Amino acid sequence: MTHNPYPEYRFLLGSKSPRRQHLLKELGIHYELVSIDVDEVFPDHLEGSEIPKYLSALKADAFPLIDYPPNTILITADTIVWLEGKYIGKPEGKKGAVEMLGRLSGKTHEVYTAICLKSREAKRVFVIRTEVSFKTLSPEEIHFYIDHHRPYDKAGAYGIQDWIGLTSVTGINGCYYNVMGFPVQRFWEELQIFTKQ
Amino acid sequence: MTHNPYPEYRFLLGSKSPRRQHLLKELGIHYELVSIDVDEVFPDHLEGSEIPKYLSALKADAFPLIDYPPNTILITADTIVWLEGKYIGKPEGKKGAVEMLGRLSGKTHEVYTAICLKSREAKRVFVIRTEVSFKTLSPEEIHFYIDHHRPYDKAGAYGIQDWIGLTSVTGINGCYYNVMGFPVQRFWEELQIFTKQ
Repeated sequence: MTHNPYPEYRFLLGSKSPRRQHLLKELGIHYELVSIDVDEVFPDHLEGSEIPKYLSALKADAFPLIDYPPNTILITADTIVWLEGKYIGKPEGKKGAVEMLGRLSGKTHEVYTAICLKSREAKRVFVIRTEVSFKTLSPEEIHFYIDHHRPYDKAGAYGIQDWIGLTSVTGINGCYYNVMGFPVQRFWEELQIFTKQ
Repeated sequence: MTHNPYPEYRFLLGSKSPRRQHLLKELGIHYELVSIDVDEVFPDHLEGSEIPKYLSALKADAFPLIDYPPNTILITADTIVWLEGKYIGKPEGKKGAVEMLGRLSGKTHEVYTAICLKSREAKRVFVIRTEVSFKTLSPEEIHFYIDHHRPYDKAGAYGIQDWIGLTSVTGINGCYYNVMGFPVQRFWEELQIFTKQ
């Protein structure tokens, strides 16, 4: 699809994730990338889905939307992995990635992605949950994957579309693209509602 | 991943599907495409998962594997959609595709892909099931999709990786790549067992 479904709006995407950029392009939406620098820190009492909701809104609120025309829609997002009641973000270095994948091995975890849509007049945050099941990973598979794919920008230290996702994810329950960091179907639906306000 | 995990084997892929070809490449497996012409007809009494199992084996058995070296592994596959106890294959023409998508609209269906691995000495067929849920599709969405994507080579008249999958699949339960026609994780596991025989 190449035609722009929302020619009357100006979209800003505040995300460095190439997966998000690609999926938004697939919808035919024209956007500009903007850089948002915030410390991704959240209050201790937040759990599961509350964390990416908080962080996606935090990113949106750190952007000077007031300097842009009224028809501007800013899109921010945050993805986390949630395993047995514990938060898993992006890994720090190889040691952190090895440890993360070791924890996910042989288990089912949850992935939450929250999206924040923000204009001058309105703000909407929604979150999607997908369950992802991994087979038991061998140390060789973990090291091979990390060395070849360097998953340091990814929550949980894996990409479902990478070699390790292809060979080791036994199944998911929910939206696949949510695991990639952008729940496209829900975004599409929410955008229709948001642009009617 | 670019290194070949099975250099001692010669792989033949008997499928025209570009999705299957792409996913097999992602695993680093080197293969040659072979053409297999069979009438994809199955006995009336078969149901659900039995149908692609029958058809993937039918394709394998139609190929003259005896003319190839003993270390050759032939891969064939078949994907069907199963909705409310009824078989859905590939659509015939635009009218057929419109009708199929109308039936899938607002419902959860099952996708079954069977893979047949065959060598001179061994044969193994396995099948994977994934549930796919569609939101209600408007006639405009159905026509837009069919006109732009021409899904005539796809069981159920849709590709989950296409525009309609992005915007209208609310969730899946099971393997995502199975819906694309190639259950990669299970294939990878089965191949490890098959090559040990």
